[in-house]
Amino acid sequence: MPEPTIVESDFFEVIGTQRAMRRLKTDPVPEEYIKKIIWAATRAPSGGNTQGWRFLVVTDDAKKQQIQQWYNESWQKMLDSGYGHRPDLPEAERDSNDRVMKSATYLARHMHEAPVLIFACALMQGPNREITSGSSIYPAIQNLMLAARALGLGTALTTVHRAHQDEIRTLLGIPETVETAALIPVGWPKGKFGSGFRKPVEDVTYWDSWGTKRK
Amino acid sequence: MPEPTIVESDFFEVIGTQRAMRRLKTDPVPEEYIKKIIWAATRAPSGGNTQGWRFLVVTDDAKKQQIQQWYNESWQKMLDSGYGHRPDLPEAERDSNDRVMKSATYLARHMHEAPVLIFACALMQGPNREITSGSSIYPAIQNLMLAARALGLGTALTTVHRAHQDEIRTLLGIPETVETAALIPVGWPKGKFGSGFRKPVEDVTYWDSWGTKRK
Repeated sequence: MPEPTIVESDFFEVIGTQRAMRRLKTDPVPEEYIKKIIWAATRAPSGGNTQGWRFLVVTDDAKKQQIQQWYNESWQKMLDSGYGHRPDLPEAERDSNDRVMKSATYLARHMHEAPVLIFACALMQGPNREITSGSSIYPAIQNLMLAARALGLGTALTTVHRAHQDEIRTLLGIPETVETAALIPVGWPKGKFGSGFRKPVEDVTYWDSWGTKRK
Repeated sequence: MPEPTIVESDFFEVIGTQRAMRRLKTDPVPEEYIKKIIWAATRAPSGGNTQGWRFLVVTDDAKKQQIQQWYNESWQKMLDSGYGHRPDLPEAERDSNDRVMKSATYLARHMHEAPVLIFACALMQGPNREITSGSSIYPAIQNLMLAARALGLGTALTTVHRAHQDEIRTLLGIPETVETAALIPVGWPKGKFGSGFRKPVEDVTYWDSWGTKRK
């Protein structure tokens, strides 16, 4: 199998320019690219190195269309209930928020056109209702998305499908004990990579006590 | 402020050699290194780009010692209850598991000697008992740990402190609505970076249906 072409190999450049790419071309993604980004995912840590992750790659058109219908329906419900309507935000953040909402809606309408959908699945060991239940799957997901960016592939971390998780389990044969932690569309992006809007480091860093900032 | 020295700038090399470094030197870590790894954390995605993260950096000796006592006590309880005792594992995995357990115990005994402890904190928007409650903090944590590796700094993602989360909140002034998703010791590693034991990609990748593998 040929090796994928790395379009950005500088670590901090990858970290600094990985952003959600929700507008994707329909062009296929070769299998070696998929395997490479999943390889990156498997290099992530997991509690006790249990590696309780599985990556379910969906390229079947009928299945992608069904998933898109459920996803779009859930997204529309969220929009109808006011999700993402944030007139309270300062102007700079409001513009950023508006762009995110617009592109997220584009994704909901076009999810099935992405050449690849990946469900990042977590094998659960009993019930865990704490935030730490995600501690052994989201690091792997982040590795996958960073590696995709290094290869020039667009991704986005989405969870809206979970309103239909039971139906998706049935469609794809996923056991009940498995959580679909994220649905990640993968494809060649229409737009350019670049840095998203973020708060400055000094605003989110505290020193020795909550709330104590340093310039 | 001087720029930190990057010891490994190749993206896939960083991804492939970031592993938990639990044996750390006591040498101090300059502030610009801490800020750089937190910068990397803030480049991660978060739901609706809400960036509900705070990074609480602890370098105060008395606070680190108190945290180590709680951490060590919880770790000892886990050991006493049989955590990590896995005679059922195949030999290769058993050796890996034994090494992880040994170094995790070392960390519990020496946590306070790490020059820096970082609590990765998540601002919660109401109760969320689903796995997705971690989807907007663990990607940032992974970015932080990858960036540390690029700078030659060792880290480990730990959650054992959570048995004493309430006391830690009191010690550091963390509000009740904030979850300490991880405690990450940061320092110059005694050992070498390298790839940990992982299952092959084909064992954790399914195609179009759960359980369907491809070579």
